[in-house]
Amino acid sequence: MTTQTPAISKAFYAIIAGVGGGTGRAVALRFARTYPVAVLARTEASYAGIVDEVVRRGGEAVGVSADVADEKSLASALEVVREKFKGKGLAVGVYNVGAGLSIKPFLETTVEDLDQSLASNVRGLYNFAHSTLPSLLDSVSANPPYPPTLLVTGATASLRGAARFGTFAAGKFAVRALSQSLAREFGPQGVHVAHVVVDGVIEGPRTKGYTVNEGVEDGKLDPEAIAESYWHLHTQHRSAFTHELDLRPYVEKF
Amino acid sequence: MTTQTPAISKAFYAIIAGVGGGTGRAVALRFARTYPVAVLARTEASYAGIVDEVVRRGGEAVGVSADVADEKSLASALEVVREKFKGKGLAVGVYNVGAGLSIKPFLETTVEDLDQSLASNVRGLYNFAHSTLPSLLDSVSANPPYPPTLLVTGATASLRGAARFGTFAAGKFAVRALSQSLAREFGPQGVHVAHVVVDGVIEGPRTKGYTVNEGVEDGKLDPEAIAESYWHLHTQHRSAFTHELDLRPYVEKF
Amino acid sequence: MTTQTPAISKAFYAIIAGVGGGTGRAVALRFARTYPVAVLARTEASYAGIVDEVVRRGGEAVGVSADVADEKSLASALEVVREKFKGKGLAVGVYNVGAGLSIKPFLETTVEDLDQSLASNVRGLYNFAHSTLPSLLDSVSANPPYPPTLLVTGATASLRGAARFGTFAAGKFAVRALSQSLAREFGPQGVHVAHVVVDGVIEGPRTKGYTVNEGVEDGKLDPEAIAESYWHLHTQHRSAFTHELDLRPYVEKF
Amino acid sequence: MTTQTPAISKAFYAIIAGVGGGTGRAVALRFARTYPVAVLARTEASYAGIVDEVVRRGGEAVGVSADVADEKSLASALEVVREKFKGKGLAVGVYNVGAGLSIKPFLETTVEDLDQSLASNVRGLYNFAHSTLPSLLDSVSANPPYPPTLLVTGATASLRGAARFGTFAAGKFAVRALSQSLAREFGPQGVHVAHVVVDGVIEGPRTKGYTVNEGVEDGKLDPEAIAESYWHLHTQHRSAFTHELDLRPYVEKF
Repeated sequence: MTTQTPAISKAFYAIIAGVGGGTGRAVALRFARTYPVAVLARTEASYAGIVDEVVRRGGEAVGVSADVADEKSLASALEVVREKFKGKGLAVGVYNVGAGLSIKPFLETTVEDLDQSLASNVRGLYNFAHSTLPSLLDSVSANPPYPPTLLVTGATASLRGAARFGTFAAGKFAVRALSQSLAREFGPQGVHVAHVVVDGVIEGPRTKGYTVNEGVEDGKLDPEAIAESYWHLHTQHRSAFTHELDLRPYVEKF
Repeated sequence: MTTQTPAISKAFYAIIAGVGGGTGRAVALRFARTYPVAVLARTEASYAGIVDEVVRRGGEAVGVSADVADEKSLASALEVVREKFKGKGLAVGVYNVGAGLSIKPFLETTVEDLDQSLASNVRGLYNFAHSTLPSLLDSVSANPPYPPTLLVTGATASLRGAARFGTFAAGKFAVRALSQSLAREFGPQGVHVAHVVVDGVIEGPRTKGYTVNEGVEDGKLDPEAIAESYWHLHTQHRSAFTHELDLRPYVEKF
Repeated sequence: MTTQTPAISKAFYAIIAGVGGGTGRAVALRFARTYPVAVLARTEASYAGIVDEVVRRGGEAVGVSADVADEKSLASALEVVREKFKGKGLAVGVYNVGAGLSIKPFLETTVEDLDQSLASNVRGLYNFAHSTLPSLLDSVSANPPYPPTLLVTGATASLRGAARFGTFAAGKFAVRALSQSLAREFGPQGVHVAHVVVDGVIEGPRTKGYTVNEGVEDGKLDPEAIAESYWHLHTQHRSAFTHELDLRPYVEKF
Repeated sequence: MTTQTPAISKAFYAIIAGVGGGTGRAVALRFARTYPVAVLARTEASYAGIVDEVVRRGGEAVGVSADVADEKSLASALEVVREKFKGKGLAVGVYNVGAGLSIKPFLETTVEDLDQSLASNVRGLYNFAHSTLPSLLDSVSANPPYPPTLLVTGATASLRGAARFGTFAAGKFAVRALSQSLAREFGPQGVHVAHVVVDGVIEGPRTKGYTVNEGVEDGKLDPEAIAESYWHLHTQHRSAFTHELDLRPYVEKF
């Protein structure tokens, strides 16, 4: 059953959408140990450093600007990626986008808060899945090192609509719904779709100032630790796919 | 604790959005036994018969055309309603809208399928809740017969993203997220927000031809039975609010 | 579809197991408005007052001592009940037992804490269901006013294994498992099985001293309010059965 | 963050309870690549082959007969293990016991079916956790290669009480309750408690004859694939613990 990890795959590549934060970066670096990686973000500033870092470590990477909530923007970006990795199959797509966090009393929100959450969460996933699943299906029969995989990042708000998180939770619940549906449709076709509930604050520049879990060591999620679980999901044998797992700091209340 | 049901309330009214199918109609008729009711639907054809029926039974009703997914359309409709019921408080709002059911292989769907599901499900609820919660809050201190209530209709797809139901489930999960969030924010302020998971096919003209549960008697949900549970939710004492319940035929697999 | 509530049924009776606290008492009094009721508790002190109260209000009641976790004790008690209500069918059984709450660090618990929780929660329900379901099935075809019903009381710990609540939650989760299974098996045979998640502190002599929800009015569940929802569940039409609902004070965090 | 996997740890060992089937065996062999392992089963026949296999592969193992549902039996067995691995810390305990599967109409079950399910599932886990958590806590500060871990095997029936599975589901739900509670209490103390929902039929001698998922290749869970996920859970960084994941064949309906 076990497959040796190829040094760097010549035949397959990975796409990670949403590398503006620490998780996307760590996931890209983790998958780049095995695959050439394409990293997508709204702005070059978000991915330039990652591409450099992958190359510095002996890997291969391409960065492309894209707004995944916009079908055409994503389509153009994927064209660039496919040109770059022509002849390779898609091994894994990671959907790690999801802005739209606005914590406000409901009556102070506007419908734009909702629309932004829906766009960056579920419409983005819709577009990303719609564009990458045909390639993932093609890879099933192309002797990939591991089952072709679509990984989706969720959050606490994927499972719980907390007070004042309504518009955000709407987007996250919708992402979970679509992920489940895709898992049920594409699993039997050999594509592994998994949803990861990240339940806590992720360590990174944006969260440096946050005191969570009373500031104890490892009280925020280490992006590299998250990336290890993404990699594990990708490497699961098709007889034992995980559809959903949670990740949280050992001290996190849940 | 118990409160006598007023014959027909002079001081409060109810709004039911989404009366094109059997559930909305039955809910409107049930609540019209106590309150003047406003019924909203996209087209007059959907509500005209209900208004007549309420009046015939000695109640009071107004019907207004509205597209709840469109902020302005809903705002105009509510203005008509408020003018009609001037001086009365809002006792209950029922959100029973939710089209966007398209059962298709994912790769045959378009982003419009998703957008339509999100619009009629969660954007509609957002608009409806945003417009009615201020009135419901006002009613808390106006000595209403029962706690002011916002009731939301869900479906099997609110809890489960089945294969080929992805775009529909996205909208329904999002509605559930928002309902939970509203319950947690407005419950402590005295407004009861409840979400009803209708898990089965509802009896009605549209489903007459469907054979479900092998065609056994009562194998589809009777809209009047649904309406009884909506009414029960509305009458719950604030010390014992239900946030979510399921409703399904006795023979339904779950 | 609607059925007139019979004054006091001559043909059917109800059994409520677990009337030591406020909920069992209120449920017994609520159902006694329609049915003769049998009330079971470990000690006469728990039910004597209820029997008197029912009679005082013009109803009919019998109290019997029983330990539901003990098959034989329950069997003897039910024999007394059946003798008393000979010729009547069983309309409803309510399982409202469930001691075994011990909130302790896990390493300070003993296996007896676990065994006590399992016995009073799930073994008790097993015995009660095993003894009453044949009668409830018999009633299905005996033209009962409402579908024969088995109602089960759950708690916050039915859905969540909180720290230091492990042995208690084990019993409550197990009750929920069994309730679900019974609903799925007996629903299609016409018996309504429902599980009620009581999520909060119930008002009563035992909880008088507890300050919950900052002591606000109605911050504890009113047993009469709980009883209204039990009654509603019993009266649901078979085309729209609820299997599970939650009940909590409007101010309760969830 | 990453730690090199030690060849074979000299300082820590693992215990796997329940090695009569394929999962326990595969988990034991997987963990034996890093740790000396103790394997517990009711009968020597269940573990003798595993001990030999571990030794043949250059590892270290001890097998002991025990009935985990019986406190004293388990205590004696653990004494043998501790004597054998004196001086080493406990790195991981795996609870993989859980008989009591009896699929029968409820009225054909007996209370012994329930008691057997509760004993082998939740009382066994209670005993196992009670006996091993003090050692796992000791290991937290003993510089272990990975956070000390308690892994618990669940099943489809951990989440769903299907018709005719009531007594089995009662035991499995209870195990899940206790696992959650332990995770919440011991996680903040540095011990990782995880619950794995195995949702499908596991490949092995006992299931050879079963045709599941129309007999397609990999339609049953490969025990080695399960073991890889157990190992992954054990190696998770404490900033990103998973409490629960599901494992199922790609073709399994869910």
